[in-house]
Amino acid sequence: MTDMNDADIRLLRIAYDEAKAGFDEGGCPIGSVLARGGEVVAQGRNQRVQKGDPIAHGEMDALRKAGRQKSYRDTTLYTSLSPCMMCTGTIIQFGIPRVVIGENKNFGGNEDFLRSKGVEVIVADDPDCIDLMQRFITEKPELWAEDIAE
Amino acid sequence: MTDMNDADIRLLRIAYDEAKAGFDEGGCPIGSVLARGGEVVAQGRNQRVQKGDPIAHGEMDALRKAGRQKSYRDTTLYTSLSPCMMCTGTIIQFGIPRVVIGENKNFGGNEDFLRSKGVEVIVADDPDCIDLMQRFITEKPELWAEDIAE
Repeated sequence: MTDMNDADIRLLRIAYDEAKAGFDEGGCPIGSVLARGGEVVAQGRNQRVQKGDPIAHGEMDALRKAGRQKSYRDTTLYTSLSPCMMCTGTIIQFGIPRVVIGENKNFGGNEDFLRSKGVEVIVADDPDCIDLMQRFITEKPELWAEDIAE
Repeated sequence: MTDMNDADIRLLRIAYDEAKAGFDEGGCPIGSVLARGGEVVAQGRNQRVQKGDPIAHGEMDALRKAGRQKSYRDTTLYTSLSPCMMCTGTIIQFGIPRVVIGENKNFGGNEDFLRSKGVEVIVADDPDCIDLMQRFITEKPELWAEDIAE
């Protein structure tokens, strides 16, 4: 967590709050924020259950809501859970240079691939993110399996 | 093109028709079809201009429209243009085992990465797909650059 600044802590908390809102809606509790200069550009959360949308992982929902951007080179993407391969590919394709991950205890594995493409990756090991995701996986294992196509 | 069957030719043509419809709408002309057993599950096209949606590449739009699927293991994804890193990551994450690509003359580079993950990749070198994309890149270079974040 040494590379996290005050804005990172604040913005990751918004991603967690999005995740928690998704949990309370009965969805997959993964939230995300796209930020520029410490300010929210857009925030979103997984919409698989809420909208029946399989591509709307938390990160993707935030990026969709951000709309058309000329460049992502000055942005940071915050996500409550380590990005899957879809979201990892998107981060690389969009040229997002920095990703702050709430936790990768419950799901992860693409951190080194992101780093190999020049993306700065910070893992916060946030206890609230870990606990929320663990609770979801325990309570709704089939929904979680569907979300990661397992 | 040796590995393409009659269904592939028919379904790739639907992806091209989606691309052409996108071109006629003033959008990025890239279309896609998700198919199972030679039948269309969903078809879509890039929605950057039409919906202001940066994540809705052709492949993503088709996958979104397909809704929640229990599995993609018996599907083929058709796309008029070689998938970018976002769509490549999505194909891998979703476990789509087979991708038929209209062309990769105008954009490409992720074919070997897909193959390294066990995805069968067929490139059709379709002249209509090549011509349409070339025309778009020539006429709207700034929109194309935005779509691939360059």
